[in-house]
Amino acid sequence: MFENIDTPAVLIDQIRVEANMKRLQDYCNAHGIRLRPHIKTHKLPGTALQQIKCGAVGVTCQKVGEAEIMAEGGVGDILITYNIIGKSKVERVRALNDRIDLAVVADSDFVVSGLSNVLQNSTKPLTVLVECDTGMRRCGVQTIEAAMQLAKDIDAAAGLRFGGLMSYPPTGRISEVNTWLDEAKSLILTNGIECPVVSCGNSPDLELWHKAPVVTEHRAGTYIYCDRNMILQGVATEDDCALIVLVTVVSTPTKTRAVIDAGSKALTSDLSLKPGYGLIIGHPGLDISALSEEHGHITSDLPHRLQVGQRLRIIPNHVCPVSNLFDKVHFVRGEKYDQPVSVAARGALT
Amino acid sequence: MFENIDTPAVLIDQIRVEANMKRLQDYCNAHGIRLRPHIKTHKLPGTALQQIKCGAVGVTCQKVGEAEIMAEGGVGDILITYNIIGKSKVERVRALNDRIDLAVVADSDFVVSGLSNVLQNSTKPLTVLVECDTGMRRCGVQTIEAAMQLAKDIDAAAGLRFGGLMSYPPTGRISEVNTWLDEAKSLILTNGIECPVVSCGNSPDLELWHKAPVVTEHRAGTYIYCDRNMILQGVATEDDCALIVLVTVVSTPTKTRAVIDAGSKALTSDLSLKPGYGLIIGHPGLDISALSEEHGHITSDLPHRLQVGQRLRIIPNHVCPVSNLFDKVHFVRGEKYDQPVSVAARGALT
Repeated sequence: MFENIDTPAVLIDQIRVEANMKRLQDYCNAHGIRLRPHIKTHKLPGTALQQIKCGAVGVTCQKVGEAEIMAEGGVGDILITYNIIGKSKVERVRALNDRIDLAVVADSDFVVSGLSNVLQNSTKPLTVLVECDTGMRRCGVQTIEAAMQLAKDIDAAAGLRFGGLMSYPPTGRISEVNTWLDEAKSLILTNGIECPVVSCGNSPDLELWHKAPVVTEHRAGTYIYCDRNMILQGVATEDDCALIVLVTVVSTPTKTRAVIDAGSKALTSDLSLKPGYGLIIGHPGLDISALSEEHGHITSDLPHRLQVGQRLRIIPNHVCPVSNLFDKVHFVRGEKYDQPVSVAARGALT
Repeated sequence: MFENIDTPAVLIDQIRVEANMKRLQDYCNAHGIRLRPHIKTHKLPGTALQQIKCGAVGVTCQKVGEAEIMAEGGVGDILITYNIIGKSKVERVRALNDRIDLAVVADSDFVVSGLSNVLQNSTKPLTVLVECDTGMRRCGVQTIEAAMQLAKDIDAAAGLRFGGLMSYPPTGRISEVNTWLDEAKSLILTNGIECPVVSCGNSPDLELWHKAPVVTEHRAGTYIYCDRNMILQGVATEDDCALIVLVTVVSTPTKTRAVIDAGSKALTSDLSLKPGYGLIIGHPGLDISALSEEHGHITSDLPHRLQVGQRLRIIPNHVCPVSNLFDKVHFVRGEKYDQPVSVAARGALT
């Protein structure tokens, strides 16, 4: 299978992609939640358009460069969930805002001022959501009072429009997250400011967000491909995993040790809940116990029975960085495949 | 400094690159060791040519694709230290062998047969070295007898020429490695086969290879830039580090926690000897304690005193994968810099 594809290679099963896409869209539709998938997982404008055709309201990006590439590919509604800092980036945001429906986030006055300085004379205001730290301890304002104050600042800033609240939530704490965001929203409304959007969501808590009624928008990313982490978290099965890395055994130095042609440059050195750097499909007794840049080290307790030249299929621990390591990916349907597709938003770091 | 460069960005100090290059070349010259630097660290044909101009005999690549890009850039002597498997890759090796001085390695009959099948009618034989496992437990034949047998097989194979021995050695075990390779070489000579090259070397044992008299060739890679791992191993200082990642503080949620715009997509999730994902130049009290894809989490015991918008310079744990994450890098000399340079061999995975 796939003999004409040189390894290491990424294969993406479109049948599984479509099933994953539809499943979450159906869930969101059933609960009246708007889906705004994160493109970090696939980085493909074509797949973003498929998600929108399936019912998503738009997409989420992390970088201005990613949003530019998605807009170029035809996506018309984008939320950048990142503090955009520096005149040149904000000018790119302004240019993008003139072309599409765009929103960004802010968690400090510094970010709001930087946006307003460039946008103040714009004919079209830029929508800005307040990023809230509801327990993840990454970015975000720390209190509901700070959220309210920043909403006021955005509301008052020339060229900006307050769009609502946004949080990247900690896994498994839906109720706490809902309370935080609900109280913040109420405080903002009390201050006479509308709060149309409350954007939240992640893949580990994929189909639990209806338990957070304040949330209007779900931003899952990984669900489109799934990965070993999602399997270990109990929210996906091996059969849901749409992206696999096709590799070749290049050496079998001993009966319990083999080497594949995919190392950290193909599988990423991202760790998982369990030891090992990926799941080898069909070989439950084999572990990817270590990676160097171009070598994956397979070890086993019993003899591995692998042969040099043999091909293996691996589900990565974390699928999103894998999409960032391959210039091209192969779309497959069962055993059929076409020419590789460019990962257009790969490496869009700024 | 570097205000016009958007972050995250890679800056490469050419003054330090040249000093690192010259220092190791001087060492090799003084001890009669031929230097064949590994391009995995920089992935830049221009830098490879600089290394050769400085006295290197050629370069080392890990992938056929990297070697093709280096040859295209003008490099005329390349060793690919990888088992090349599969007809299409071996055909590319044959085409490359017709253009430049090329050598590859093998650690099994399977690899030797695959090479010979394609090269047997070539007018120019392909040089093949035997990869030896001298303690690293990655690829390589396991015994000196197996090395001798494979040397015989290569010597007898149509279209191939036995070139010598190659090992990626374990750190800090020069004497053991020397014994292994010396005994293997002697056994091969006893069997009437010449063994012109014994290729070894790494950056952690940078200037120790004169203690292994059997070694004729040194393949260090990381020495050209150095990194936090080399500092922690005691073979480089902060001032030797030529590649730094320029980042911006995007959020300061609390007095002891800040967030930068470089996560695993910029710094890699490669771990180091000590906790933390990089060294923040000039801020010894700050730790990069965690990474998500686009966020670096800085934590400190005392208040960090960082401001949103402030720029920081980071020495990565492991510099080679960082070169693989950026499409372009900025060459700098002190505070001067030009247009960014394309990392030509980035992502050449096959």
